[in-house]
Amino acid sequence: MTHPEYILTLSCPDQRGIVHRVSGFLAEHGCNILDSAQFGDQETQRFFMRVHFAAEDAGVGDAALRTEFAQLADTLRLEWNLHDAHAKPRVLLMVSKIGHCLNDLLFRYKSGLLPVEIPAIVSNHMDFYQLAASYNIPFHHLPLATGAPEAAKLAQEARIVDLMNTHQIDLVVLARYMQILSPDLCARLKGKAINIHHSFLPSFKGARPYAQAHKRGVKLIGATAHFVTGDLDEGPIIEQDVERVDHAMDAETLSAIGRDVECVVLARAVKWFVEHRILQNGDRTVIFK
Amino acid sequence: MTHPEYILTLSCPDQRGIVHRVSGFLAEHGCNILDSAQFGDQETQRFFMRVHFAAEDAGVGDAALRTEFAQLADTLRLEWNLHDAHAKPRVLLMVSKIGHCLNDLLFRYKSGLLPVEIPAIVSNHMDFYQLAASYNIPFHHLPLATGAPEAAKLAQEARIVDLMNTHQIDLVVLARYMQILSPDLCARLKGKAINIHHSFLPSFKGARPYAQAHKRGVKLIGATAHFVTGDLDEGPIIEQDVERVDHAMDAETLSAIGRDVECVVLARAVKWFVEHRILQNGDRTVIFK
Amino acid sequence: MTHPEYILTLSCPDQRGIVHRVSGFLAEHGCNILDSAQFGDQETQRFFMRVHFAAEDAGVGDAALRTEFAQLADTLRLEWNLHDAHAKPRVLLMVSKIGHCLNDLLFRYKSGLLPVEIPAIVSNHMDFYQLAASYNIPFHHLPLATGAPEAAKLAQEARIVDLMNTHQIDLVVLARYMQILSPDLCARLKGKAINIHHSFLPSFKGARPYAQAHKRGVKLIGATAHFVTGDLDEGPIIEQDVERVDHAMDAETLSAIGRDVECVVLARAVKWFVEHRILQNGDRTVIFK
Amino acid sequence: MTHPEYILTLSCPDQRGIVHRVSGFLAEHGCNILDSAQFGDQETQRFFMRVHFAAEDAGVGDAALRTEFAQLADTLRLEWNLHDAHAKPRVLLMVSKIGHCLNDLLFRYKSGLLPVEIPAIVSNHMDFYQLAASYNIPFHHLPLATGAPEAAKLAQEARIVDLMNTHQIDLVVLARYMQILSPDLCARLKGKAINIHHSFLPSFKGARPYAQAHKRGVKLIGATAHFVTGDLDEGPIIEQDVERVDHAMDAETLSAIGRDVECVVLARAVKWFVEHRILQNGDRTVIFK
Repeated sequence: MTHPEYILTLSCPDQRGIVHRVSGFLAEHGCNILDSAQFGDQETQRFFMRVHFAAEDAGVGDAALRTEFAQLADTLRLEWNLHDAHAKPRVLLMVSKIGHCLNDLLFRYKSGLLPVEIPAIVSNHMDFYQLAASYNIPFHHLPLATGAPEAAKLAQEARIVDLMNTHQIDLVVLARYMQILSPDLCARLKGKAINIHHSFLPSFKGARPYAQAHKRGVKLIGATAHFVTGDLDEGPIIEQDVERVDHAMDAETLSAIGRDVECVVLARAVKWFVEHRILQNGDRTVIFK
Repeated sequence: MTHPEYILTLSCPDQRGIVHRVSGFLAEHGCNILDSAQFGDQETQRFFMRVHFAAEDAGVGDAALRTEFAQLADTLRLEWNLHDAHAKPRVLLMVSKIGHCLNDLLFRYKSGLLPVEIPAIVSNHMDFYQLAASYNIPFHHLPLATGAPEAAKLAQEARIVDLMNTHQIDLVVLARYMQILSPDLCARLKGKAINIHHSFLPSFKGARPYAQAHKRGVKLIGATAHFVTGDLDEGPIIEQDVERVDHAMDAETLSAIGRDVECVVLARAVKWFVEHRILQNGDRTVIFK
Repeated sequence: MTHPEYILTLSCPDQRGIVHRVSGFLAEHGCNILDSAQFGDQETQRFFMRVHFAAEDAGVGDAALRTEFAQLADTLRLEWNLHDAHAKPRVLLMVSKIGHCLNDLLFRYKSGLLPVEIPAIVSNHMDFYQLAASYNIPFHHLPLATGAPEAAKLAQEARIVDLMNTHQIDLVVLARYMQILSPDLCARLKGKAINIHHSFLPSFKGARPYAQAHKRGVKLIGATAHFVTGDLDEGPIIEQDVERVDHAMDAETLSAIGRDVECVVLARAVKWFVEHRILQNGDRTVIFK
Repeated sequence: MTHPEYILTLSCPDQRGIVHRVSGFLAEHGCNILDSAQFGDQETQRFFMRVHFAAEDAGVGDAALRTEFAQLADTLRLEWNLHDAHAKPRVLLMVSKIGHCLNDLLFRYKSGLLPVEIPAIVSNHMDFYQLAASYNIPFHHLPLATGAPEAAKLAQEARIVDLMNTHQIDLVVLARYMQILSPDLCARLKGKAINIHHSFLPSFKGARPYAQAHKRGVKLIGATAHFVTGDLDEGPIIEQDVERVDHAMDAETLSAIGRDVECVVLARAVKWFVEHRILQNGDRTVIFK
């Protein structure tokens, strides 16, 4: 028999004895720590912790664990979440006309490397309908004409929100979804939407980053996975990586090379989210790998 | 007033409640955890921990802390070390005729990036006498003729051991010291000597690794910092890195490119040792970065 | 109107004036060099060249070009190939039960990033039949029982050879095909079959390289794309790359991380082959990127 | 007897037959091509070439070679340089208070890896006087008070220019020289001064890039070697590289890690300059590695 496992994430003002109090709570409740990491930010005086533990004593129920931890959390002024380690987060994938990240995430999902449910794929184009079908995942075509009026955009977004509600979505992944989201939708997605930007941010924000990179003559190109916020390409960075390029490559070649970096960077970010390894620290992220 | 700071490293058979017991001990003794990391090896069922803490309560003396922790350590069957975080480890540098790693470590030391004492440099050649002199560090020329008899080698090594004793050396760094140490000296240096090997181990052990790499036509070359053991180039790996090469480069060019990797890899390994971030896990290392 | 384009690759004993002779031939035949690269190996005294050119003068036919170049080639003792730059090489993909490389190559093919024809996929298992079907590519299930007798193996390989002949295959890609090919098949595939090995060769040849890597405690893991030869994992290396790992990762995690490296490394090797950028230099490769 | 060797670099409007004309000239003059690379920029329709050759026939003198090549160059509208491959460029190193790049370049010079003459080191501080002395290189202390008036700055720069003239300097290296040069000096240094900027440009231009990087929460930090121009940190990029960082590192730690990247990036850029591998293509560079 395997025991229930949990992942606890928390942050709070730094103070003496947090690790001791939390580890004490777990010991008292018959829980065994499998993995634990913590970080105290000297600058902001804020403390972050992630604990993966097994509830080994039969007597400890989920509800009791939560209720009793909530009391400790109040005392320590914790912001916290307690996740069932075996529950699969529910992910909504969004894409436009460039599909390498979508394809990559779907294959990871299918082959068991990415333990999520994917109840829906949304696109403003039809290009990846067949790909979605081959994975037996419902495909929602929510077109949006270039230069569509505000109202049309909001109506389209309302349907996205409907899908999120219907499917109890935990995470939205913008896998090269090339529409700027409205401020309202960004606000609603705070902390639960990841975008892949095809540059090494903060360089080359906005449109056509590979063309910008080519023009500037950089010797490495990159990709950045970040949380979506209302400030375009300014959200907290989760992961970045780069690849070497040279003078003989035009913008199109940079783009082709960059796709491989985008896939890997986005896949890492999604995996860390799913494993509850990402905590936000103001405009930055703490990643407990 | 700054408080005394310590770095505690420990390993033991994995068991429930270790973090709680150690953090409890520190809380009871008025110590504040500044940084902590732990790792439980599922395979070997062994647990590893590093805690950096400040003894904030005036009443806790160094001796009392050690005596009382020793009691807890006995109960938990800990292998442990308690290091004064502000003490500078004493390092003996050894080199032959290729000096980029030596030069690199000396500059880091001089500019304050590597908080160590370097009471002596040993070489079997005279090439770096002036470099040592420019840093005002005693240079010990302990030559060893090619094909020297066993007795000569042991006599030379006896002088190295004398230097280690005289200067209370904590770490020996073989910064491209091109002599194979005797089994006795290897045994004596167990866990306190780091070598830089100029290949990505386990590829290309032994002599002339860049020539071997060139012959095999690899597309990346590397360097490996590892603990010295009696098995040549088989000691626990501390750090590795690589650099891209191509078909147009001969063995000499590989060697020139490799030097940059060697410097960085060895410098990282030495820094981690000095900060007590390296624990041995059988033939492997745990690195708490 | 676009002009016919060609890619000429050649190698020969190094001698003065080769570039001049070849560029002269092209100039005389109304061809414009679009891209050219050359390499003289000082060690082997062998010269390598790749020239991409456009036949801009209407009068130059394909047949005449080949016939007349053959005369020059004889004089200079060239080994050479002249490829139509717009022709798509015909690729046979082979896979067993781990499909990330297959999936990756198929998506590149579908999205136009990899200009090839893929007339057939071969597998000794049924796992990727549906994936093949979603790309509308014929899937050939050629099973081979564990410990099957020699005769069964040779019969299975005979069917692979039949497929190669039927479909005029230019390149066989072993995209995690976990069967050792017979010496005869290896010989037949010389220079036209690429394998992806999931380690940084020459480290960790043979079976279960990630388990070997974990046991040795390396700090980076890698993947190697190489030409298939009769010596297992000893063929000329085309491309390699690595990714950082740490002590907390077990062999299974190394394997998951390694998959991303395998995809990229194999995709680069296949792309370079398809673009006629790989020349063999004894047991090594010259790659004109 | 070894033959005189030359490195020819050229650029011109793209046109058919350049390679043939240049290789023909060399063949006629008894010169053997050792290494050659070329690049045609499709966007700008400009062609770039670098040829390393040996003048093997005794009859070809340096002066004749130059005079006769100049005639061909006129015909083809070439911008060109013909460098004696064995001549050591004369380099002026400039530094302020952070000296890892200086130390690194000096050691490469001393150990023969960087074939240059270094007739002078300039600094606005005294920190590296002893380091310069240990290499027996004249050290020129040209202080400049914070907020010094324009006239003082220009006077200081006039002394730099004097040194450049006196020592016939081919290349000025700003090895962490923390003064902004005047527009006049920038103009004078066009194409012959390399700066190392401690960020991955175009991110984090200007002052304190590591603090900026830390604030933005990037996951990789970098360094950029570029030609000095009047636009601060906007000159043509020669080389860049990055290193991974994480949330636990403060700006000071980023800075320490970044130093290793800066050393390597600057050293590569200087080496390529010295080997005449860098050609300017508008605001970008062509690097023939």
